[in-house]
Amino acid sequence: MCELLGMSANVPTDICFSFTGLVQRGGRTGPHVDGWGITFYEGKGCRTFKDPVACAQSQIARLVQEYPIKSCAVVSHIRQANRGSVALENTHPFTRELWGRYWTFAHNGQLTNYESLDCDRFEPVGQTDSEKSFCWLLNQLEKQFPVFPETPETLFRFLATLCDQLMALGVFNMLLSDGEYLITYCTTNLHSITRRAPFGQAKLIDDDVTIDFQQETTPDDVVTVIATQPLTHNENWLKMERGELNVFRLGEKVLTIVSGKNQGA
Amino acid sequence: MCELLGMSANVPTDICFSFTGLVQRGGRTGPHVDGWGITFYEGKGCRTFKDPVACAQSQIARLVQEYPIKSCAVVSHIRQANRGSVALENTHPFTRELWGRYWTFAHNGQLTNYESLDCDRFEPVGQTDSEKSFCWLLNQLEKQFPVFPETPETLFRFLATLCDQLMALGVFNMLLSDGEYLITYCTTNLHSITRRAPFGQAKLIDDDVTIDFQQETTPDDVVTVIATQPLTHNENWLKMERGELNVFRLGEKVLTIVSGKNQGA
Repeated sequence: MCELLGMSANVPTDICFSFTGLVQRGGRTGPHVDGWGITFYEGKGCRTFKDPVACAQSQIARLVQEYPIKSCAVVSHIRQANRGSVALENTHPFTRELWGRYWTFAHNGQLTNYESLDCDRFEPVGQTDSEKSFCWLLNQLEKQFPVFPETPETLFRFLATLCDQLMALGVFNMLLSDGEYLITYCTTNLHSITRRAPFGQAKLIDDDVTIDFQQETTPDDVVTVIATQPLTHNENWLKMERGELNVFRLGEKVLTIVSGKNQGA
Repeated sequence: MCELLGMSANVPTDICFSFTGLVQRGGRTGPHVDGWGITFYEGKGCRTFKDPVACAQSQIARLVQEYPIKSCAVVSHIRQANRGSVALENTHPFTRELWGRYWTFAHNGQLTNYESLDCDRFEPVGQTDSEKSFCWLLNQLEKQFPVFPETPETLFRFLATLCDQLMALGVFNMLLSDGEYLITYCTTNLHSITRRAPFGQAKLIDDDVTIDFQQETTPDDVVTVIATQPLTHNENWLKMERGELNVFRLGEKVLTIVSGKNQGA
């Protein structure tokens, strides 16, 4: 399996603290030694750092930990390979352009009978069930919405039905973003925490690091962090339920859809 | 304008030496301060490092200089903005997937009347004439070749006619790669050098750095480097001519097409 990390914020924010916690699980406190990657959005553009080696030993991961890239949307993943060899083309996150936006995807879990998913023009480059499911999602979305809809909620509700179909094939925890929206889907493990004033201290579970967010933020900052498992002690992480899709924008949860059910945030 | 740097090699080779020369032109010996990027192919996968700041001052560029990522195909670019603001989405190289391959593109020059180029499903994310021309090229290629042709030469010959059309719109020096092939097109400035045994010494023009390739290589290595302007003294760089398209594979030039003319390598 793998671990996911995502962030949505209303002001460009660095993710060094949370990423430092995740990195430990990439070979030190966790078994995810088969590669890692992180995508930062800046405006409409994005950049991805990835390495098909253990995160805890990666020189590039060290740069990302120490170099505060500020972003309003981040998608990150550390890998323990199941489907697909340990190779750069199988290292998450994956990015494709659709509707003039870069979409970035990371997946935790394992699917069966995914080979026949129709990806049409979004052809996978690697061999993972993850990239295949991403390409299938984009293909289905483009067929349903030739242009990005004026009311994105219709797109998110359709996306939720697609994710439900993938959940039927196995474990499908995912993060998806276009830089404006951060979309999460949970089948087994995803947790979120939203930090806003008054900010307090947080202590990493996986490393002896404490941060005082009050020193790092302004009173209007709103930052939501998503992770497979909580990254900090002394904070109240919310566990998402099976079949739950959430949409975050500028740090706030703007939509929640639970398989079958239908509720606004 | 901008500067281009590309590499094709028959064994995974690092480009630290040449990149060190290019970096100096990104703010120190050259005026290209509006961003830089470099894409390394490893197998079918690729990874891009980019920064919308001056290369000579970029912490990420320093990592790329010091961290020997070995690759058989590299595309790099340093930018002096003309069309499109200084922003990550306008920073080369640009990458898109077609036929299950990642295609990476970098452009030096400036085009006029490019706005009406039909990109269909390959929608630009940024505002540059470069990304627009890349999207147009991929759209034209896909229309002509729904699948990657068994004899790629037919694709390269068609690509040459497309590049000729872009040359009619202005200055179009470009690098394009899918990790197997490195394709170059010249309208004003592109130079190449192919290094093979017996290897000698090379000295950078832009920095006080000398390298003895004999220490870095094996007798069977073949490495071709492409640059807008020669990067070294005491080596014989070949200047490409206007309308010349070259295809390199595993360090060797495998095809040359000159606008109108038609000659094998």
